[in-house]
Amino acid sequence: MLTLRDPLEHASRLHATRTAVIDGERALSYGELCMRASRLGATLRGLGLARGDRVALLAWNGHRYVEAFCGIPAAGLCIVPLNTRLAPAELITIARDSGARVLLTDRDPGALGECFEHVITMPDGYETLLERIPAMPNWPLEEDQVAALFYTGGTTGLPKGVMLTHRNLVANAFQKALACSLSANDVFLATPAMFHVAGIAPLVSLLWLGGRIVTLPSFDPEACLDLIDQHGVTVFMPVPTMLAAIVAAQRARPRDVSSLRLLGHAGSPIASEEIEAAHRAFPDTELAQFYGATETASLVTCLRDEQKAIGSELLGSCGRAAPGLSVRVMREDGGECAPGEVGEILIRGASVTPGYWQRPEATAEALRDGYYHSGDLGRMDAAGHLFVVDRKKDMIISGGENVYSVEVEDVLYQHPAVREAAVIGVPDERWGEAVHAIVMVDPADRDDQLAERLKAHCRESIAGFKVPKRIEIQTEPLPKSGPGKILKRALRGQRRGAGQ
Amino acid sequence: MLTLRDPLEHASRLHATRTAVIDGERALSYGELCMRASRLGATLRGLGLARGDRVALLAWNGHRYVEAFCGIPAAGLCIVPLNTRLAPAELITIARDSGARVLLTDRDPGALGECFEHVITMPDGYETLLERIPAMPNWPLEEDQVAALFYTGGTTGLPKGVMLTHRNLVANAFQKALACSLSANDVFLATPAMFHVAGIAPLVSLLWLGGRIVTLPSFDPEACLDLIDQHGVTVFMPVPTMLAAIVAAQRARPRDVSSLRLLGHAGSPIASEEIEAAHRAFPDTELAQFYGATETASLVTCLRDEQKAIGSELLGSCGRAAPGLSVRVMREDGGECAPGEVGEILIRGASVTPGYWQRPEATAEALRDGYYHSGDLGRMDAAGHLFVVDRKKDMIISGGENVYSVEVEDVLYQHPAVREAAVIGVPDERWGEAVHAIVMVDPADRDDQLAERLKAHCRESIAGFKVPKRIEIQTEPLPKSGPGKILKRALRGQRRGAGQ
Repeated sequence: MLTLRDPLEHASRLHATRTAVIDGERALSYGELCMRASRLGATLRGLGLARGDRVALLAWNGHRYVEAFCGIPAAGLCIVPLNTRLAPAELITIARDSGARVLLTDRDPGALGECFEHVITMPDGYETLLERIPAMPNWPLEEDQVAALFYTGGTTGLPKGVMLTHRNLVANAFQKALACSLSANDVFLATPAMFHVAGIAPLVSLLWLGGRIVTLPSFDPEACLDLIDQHGVTVFMPVPTMLAAIVAAQRARPRDVSSLRLLGHAGSPIASEEIEAAHRAFPDTELAQFYGATETASLVTCLRDEQKAIGSELLGSCGRAAPGLSVRVMREDGGECAPGEVGEILIRGASVTPGYWQRPEATAEALRDGYYHSGDLGRMDAAGHLFVVDRKKDMIISGGENVYSVEVEDVLYQHPAVREAAVIGVPDERWGEAVHAIVMVDPADRDDQLAERLKAHCRESIAGFKVPKRIEIQTEPLPKSGPGKILKRALRGQRRGAGQ
Repeated sequence: MLTLRDPLEHASRLHATRTAVIDGERALSYGELCMRASRLGATLRGLGLARGDRVALLAWNGHRYVEAFCGIPAAGLCIVPLNTRLAPAELITIARDSGARVLLTDRDPGALGECFEHVITMPDGYETLLERIPAMPNWPLEEDQVAALFYTGGTTGLPKGVMLTHRNLVANAFQKALACSLSANDVFLATPAMFHVAGIAPLVSLLWLGGRIVTLPSFDPEACLDLIDQHGVTVFMPVPTMLAAIVAAQRARPRDVSSLRLLGHAGSPIASEEIEAAHRAFPDTELAQFYGATETASLVTCLRDEQKAIGSELLGSCGRAAPGLSVRVMREDGGECAPGEVGEILIRGASVTPGYWQRPEATAEALRDGYYHSGDLGRMDAAGHLFVVDRKKDMIISGGENVYSVEVEDVLYQHPAVREAAVIGVPDERWGEAVHAIVMVDPADRDDQLAERLKAHCRESIAGFKVPKRIEIQTEPLPKSGPGKILKRALRGQRRGAGQ
């Protein structure tokens, strides 16, 4: 019965004079934010869009991103945040898949622009749009209407649009607010990119509570620390790669971070040493680890007071199911794992996606028996603490971005010299994991420049963060199982050391 | 997608070893609570009940009440909590209206017992029931299924069963947890009777969070203070009448109440002096005022840090809409009131009832245009603070219990001597409001004992708290409007002083 129109109305009625967004020199009150969001929604509809039509957004974090996320779904349209790090060809694939009719962007879209009926540039075209105020009655909104499509890579190599309904995002707002003890006093530093659901979804909690969001166009550890100091930031949730950079920056030149009550991290595995280092750099701040997925509108589990787990077996756990979420670890035969036993992580709750945009098969595969089958492997202790141990999906998390091996392999295979290719994640101090490729070529094709040529080939069609950091070239076939499947586990084991 | 089965599963998986309930000498862990609740549900179904069948409960607060509230809805049945203060005739009316097939009770039900196929006495019959463990697969549960019927009086004089669905109670749990900043560390003293939704609904939040509930069979100020001291109670939400008694008791003999972080009150108007007195008696505790209704599964608005409003115009406000709830003050013509203008209080949200049990007309009257029409009159300031100024419904709140005037008037009219009767609320130091009747009789029927005889007549058919504390007898007709309607406002004005 609630939609994203509700937190917006709530904010405009109750928090009108409170500061909603701080973006550089610009501060917007909730009154202004709600007015701008509502004008954006109305003028987009004035372009002739129909209920449910998709509007894509390719931009850095900022107040206009916040406005778009508030205004587009509340107008009955569907927002499609685009990953700024993708290659043009990838963006075009996503634009076409989504069927978006409008693009809002802060950059020259190039060939991407041809996918849309309307390209609105930020800030100029956007601001002109907001000057018009078409009076249009609201469309009715249903809670199960799709509010946003967040694209993720897929095991098939093709990006899939995760449909998040109004209800999903409303549920996540309550779950997140409870899990993080959010209140009207919170000042949230929005660092991870807002094109990821974890970067933008906290906004819904803040709208209801009247908290504040501080934006930064893109990640920069020094700027983050300065903003914490300057604006009294209370909550900050970087991905582990960012966390490490911030810890290093704070140790090199300490800023006043006494306002920071909660420093969370999520999105990929983290080493115990990183947590200990974070605790040393932020000794008075509570650390917390979260686990989630785009398919669950972000939050699934949380480990609050992670610093208290230092030295115990609990360190490394991403915590327990947040209120409203049910997490199970299942055997392949469908039975529930015993405590400590590794199985697939399944998730149920009101924040779980109804499925992938126009992908009935992928939807049926991921959503079965009322649970989202995450593809992640984990174990749970008797008290319900979840430990993520591996990803069934053959996915690499590098710098907080998901990279599906198959997507990179597909591109490698397109190169005429490549006869076999396997892409795996290898531990990397800076990125958590680095993308690593092993390819087999004919002896005649092998030369010293081949690896660089293959990387350049990849860069033409996939995002830079997906391009292998290293490509091993060999003339022997890759190890395979009986049915001819490349044994990635063996490849990973050789490259991660005996313990992995 | 969530039902009351979810918090129960969550608690049994994540909080099994934590203490859930303290009831006198007995402490139940969440593991025990969930097991007992699940056995209760299964054995009740084993009696041959069908999905959705009603099970009534007439008992003092205690761990078995908590078990029943957990076990009955989760089993796919519907709990009907009965007000222990009602007269037998009223209970029989409600039992019949609900169609409940089973009664769980800690007392001799007398004639009431004949309304049910099964009467299960507590503790003996109940404990015997829990020893059986029929293995039955769970019924499917829908979020829009009715989980509970809470009866309230009505403007027609007949009690109405407010249907609260699983979804209503789940939504309220999240809203309440956020509005009260509830956490796993909270210890909740359950003092208001659990047959009121405000007395039992917080349990759902606690199940999810792993907090603790301390029960007391019925209200006693000394016992409350002792329990706060003994069990480190952190949250306590008495009705104003109880609050006044507790404040007096604490001032007479101070107990260690340092654990108490939140002392809320709700359910009826409160004088500023009472709030100031509460602040003096509990100087280190946050005070909070709440507003709600049975029809909204309790919480609608809250004013946190009420003690900070002492001396300001805000004192007397019941606060602002909690996240997830939309509150509007409307003119009779359907337009929204300007700030400060008095109108009817309307409420929308996922915790709002779908209607009254088998009362399509009353449902259509109360639920229109997506809003619950509370019948309460209020005004809102520009920042959204709600002030309840009167009740359109002609309802008196005495000691936290709602008394509908018409119900008392109907009983008075049944007495042969009464020709006209009007029942109003008059300010009362102890009860907030006292039930006050003005009746017109023929001069021949008037004698010194008549008022007492009328009270005795009332006691035969309505609850003691509804019986007028004072009955004024006159031989002149009551003041009336043109169409012959008794002018209660005039009667109230004369008896409340010029300011009212």
